[in-house]
Amino acid sequence: MKLKPLDDRVVIEVKEELAEKNVGGIIIPDTAKEKPQIGKIIAVGTEEELKELVKVGDEILYSKYGGTEIDIEDKKYLIVSRSDILAIIK
Amino acid sequence: MKLKPLDDRVVIEVKEELAEKNVGGIIIPDTAKEKPQIGKIIAVGTEEELKELVKVGDEILYSKYGGTEIDIEDKKYLIVSRSDILAIIK
Amino acid sequence: MKLKPLDDRVVIEVKEELAEKNVGGIIIPDTAKEKPQIGKIIAVGTEEELKELVKVGDEILYSKYGGTEIDIEDKKYLIVSRSDILAIIK
Amino acid sequence: MKLKPLDDRVVIEVKEELAEKNVGGIIIPDTAKEKPQIGKIIAVGTEEELKELVKVGDEILYSKYGGTEIDIEDKKYLIVSRSDILAIIK
Amino acid sequence: MKLKPLDDRVVIEVKEELAEKNVGGIIIPDTAKEKPQIGKIIAVGTEEELKELVKVGDEILYSKYGGTEIDIEDKKYLIVSRSDILAIIK
Amino acid sequence: MKLKPLDDRVVIEVKEELAEKNVGGIIIPDTAKEKPQIGKIIAVGTEEELKELVKVGDEILYSKYGGTEIDIEDKKYLIVSRSDILAIIK
Amino acid sequence: MKLKPLDDRVVIEVKEELAEKNVGGIIIPDTAKEKPQIGKIIAVGTEEELKELVKVGDEILYSKYGGTEIDIEDKKYLIVSRSDILAIIK
Repeated sequence: MKLKPLDDRVVIEVKEELAEKNVGGIIIPDTAKEKPQIGKIIAVGTEEELKELVKVGDEILYSKYGGTEIDIEDKKYLIVSRSDILAIIK
Repeated sequence: MKLKPLDDRVVIEVKEELAEKNVGGIIIPDTAKEKPQIGKIIAVGTEEELKELVKVGDEILYSKYGGTEIDIEDKKYLIVSRSDILAIIK
Repeated sequence: MKLKPLDDRVVIEVKEELAEKNVGGIIIPDTAKEKPQIGKIIAVGTEEELKELVKVGDEILYSKYGGTEIDIEDKKYLIVSRSDILAIIK
Repeated sequence: MKLKPLDDRVVIEVKEELAEKNVGGIIIPDTAKEKPQIGKIIAVGTEEELKELVKVGDEILYSKYGGTEIDIEDKKYLIVSRSDILAIIK
Repeated sequence: MKLKPLDDRVVIEVKEELAEKNVGGIIIPDTAKEKPQIGKIIAVGTEEELKELVKVGDEILYSKYGGTEIDIEDKKYLIVSRSDILAIIK
Repeated sequence: MKLKPLDDRVVIEVKEELAEKNVGGIIIPDTAKEKPQIGKIIAVGTEEELKELVKVGDEILYSKYGGTEIDIEDKKYLIVSRSDILAIIK
Repeated sequence: MKLKPLDDRVVIEVKEELAEKNVGGIIIPDTAKEKPQIGKIIAVGTEEELKELVKVGDEILYSKYGGTEIDIEDKKYLIVSRSDILAIIK
């Protein structure tokens, strides 16, 4: 079963346990005003520009605000918009 | 009797009973901030771009916020806008 | 006497009595958040795009919010904008 | 003395006494949410599109909200924007 | 000394004493919701479209809201935007 | 040391002492609703259109609202946007 | 480990200790309404226009409002948008 997000959305596998630890050296301070999250893109929307910016498999920093949570086969996913993707972790 | 939605709207057959169960492995957690819904598209609006993105018969995840409910011959339908369609379930 | 609506507006003959009954199988539930209405278009605005989408005589579902009520020769009419037209009833 | 409105505005001679009576069969119900008014255009703004839509002498239904009242030689006038013109009365 | 307004602004010589009297037959009623003012344009901004609409010397009706007051050599002036110019008095 | 403002911003040397006195005949009344300020442009942003409108050395009237204050070598400066520049003083 | 910001964002190394002292003569007064910050750009977003305006290594004045804080290998970073970059320090 797969999800194909519409327009400028991506589906993200949530890496909650990592967000509080150290991912490639990144720590998100608890004092951060707008706490970013770490996730892995598993599906990219239909917008052409978006497809050139991010790929399935990219690990990203994203802003949690506005995303929509779903569970698929016991894993946590989030559907977020392009404007919520802050940066790709290389 | 049929409905032809205007502009970027779609008419959706609501699958309420499924939304709380398991559809192709998808579970929507009760704790989700903005709870998405599952529905089946029965009519697509007049916008050309929209017609290329979704088809009649597509099962979709949509955001309930902003949709308009109607009953046709004892079935529940919802008219929602393109911006409320989160993803197509494949 | 006739009304020629400006820009993206249409003039609608209100079918109040029907809205609470069954029009071609359509029932609008009392519990609907944003209760749609049924009406018949009697005049279409000056916008070219709008003229291609709807015609005089079309029965439509529309959102009451934002419309302007007038009475002409003892009949109830409403002037609504394109964005308030949800779907054409076929 | 004349007024030449700028951009998308028109100057309207207010027909207050008529608004409460019957103008060519039109009655505006007291219960109308956003009560429209009847007036006669005496000057059209500089916007090209507007000049194609309305002419001096046209009787119109307009939304009073946002208009600016002035008196010229003991008559009441209103300066309203294109978006406040609902329909031309033919 | 001169002021050259930027973009869509004009500098207006305020004619306060006139606003409450009769200027070419125009009276602004005290009961007017958004009381317009009468002024004379002494400088026109840099926007090309604006230069085609108004000239230095034009007497105008303007909406006071949003203007910026200054005094130059004991006279009162106001800097207002194009959107605050309602009409030219001919 | 120099500042190169981005996009539609300018850096202004604040002339506070003058703002309350008489600069080329200009007096800003204490009663002014949105009190304008007098300053001298010392750096112009990267926007092409802005570069054609204002030059380094221009004395301007600007709206203080929204500007960002900094001190460089004991002088007061302000970074303001194009929309805050009301007029050039000639 | 590196971050590649999306669209019009930049990643900034925060120079907090400097912000309260004297950087090339710049002092940010405590009384400043919207206190700007000093940082060094370490990664530039994908937007073409942005890449022409700023480079990795540029020291900038930025508005803190809206930025997202992260720690990478014990250093403080901030992801801010183009609209938050006030000026480049030369």
